[in-house]
Amino acid sequence: MKLNRSIALVAALAGLGASLPAAAQFAKPEDAVKYRKAAYQVMAAHFGRLGAMANGRAPYDAAAAASNADLVVVMSKLPFAGFVEGTASTEKGGPKTNIWSERAKFDAAAKKMQDEVVKLQAAAKSGNADQLKAAFGPAAGTCKACHDDFRNP
Amino acid sequence: MKLNRSIALVAALAGLGASLPAAAQFAKPEDAVKYRKAAYQVMAAHFGRLGAMANGRAPYDAAAAASNADLVVVMSKLPFAGFVEGTASTEKGGPKTNIWSERAKFDAAAKKMQDEVVKLQAAAKSGNADQLKAAFGPAAGTCKACHDDFRNP
Repeated sequence: MKLNRSIALVAALAGLGASLPAAAQFAKPEDAVKYRKAAYQVMAAHFGRLGAMANGRAPYDAAAAASNADLVVVMSKLPFAGFVEGTASTEKGGPKTNIWSERAKFDAAAKKMQDEVVKLQAAAKSGNADQLKAAFGPAAGTCKACHDDFRNP
Repeated sequence: MKLNRSIALVAALAGLGASLPAAAQFAKPEDAVKYRKAAYQVMAAHFGRLGAMANGRAPYDAAAAASNADLVVVMSKLPFAGFVEGTASTEKGGPKTNIWSERAKFDAAAKKMQDEVVKLQAAAKSGNADQLKAAFGPAAGTCKACHDDFRNP
């Protein structure tokens, strides 16, 4: 029974993007903004711990790498529902208007990140520090690429 | 292979609290504060959607209930690592000092919430709106109890 529930959990998380339509989820645009920032914040914390191991700033710990990568994968699906219309910003680090005028390109960049962190997760679970190192750069590259295109410097 | 990875994901998430020692995870106390706030923010968004269904403010949607409950369970494990020493606050909504002077009581309150959201998850997956309604109140009660004891009004 525990196993069945576990599988159901993962199936539900995997389907989350599909099952929750974006705009309907937030009462106010500000709620969407807070939500996406919070989701990125949690993702960044766990991604950063993988980076510390990948870059030798922290000792390699296979169990911690796997846990952090699992959370990065879960969190990677969440922020995008928060990019509701009318929430562009001119603030430093805020989202540019082209997120909405080039939404297909933005969604493709999001998908690229989500795919790369799944690869990073597999590498993190290999128990091999070199595989983690090799997978971290391409995953971090998807963050940077999207920030370069869609985020105010 | 997909199944094995899924099971590993859940096992890793379940063991997360155990595998990552609290204080070592944040370079600066401010990072811990930002992290716990962000984790609560994401949890609250998904918990709020369950509440809307439980209280009739939103139509009951079994798939969305299950997805939101899964995320609440994942998020419920995260904030507590962020309560590192020296991060009490006198701000409205900030954590009181008794989190640290009564840490065992605080940890028990956290555990109670984590246990109740697992029950809420089971109820959310029953496909029965009445079960969701019945489980929501006790889960919300654990939020309130902890806030009453440990959070500035």
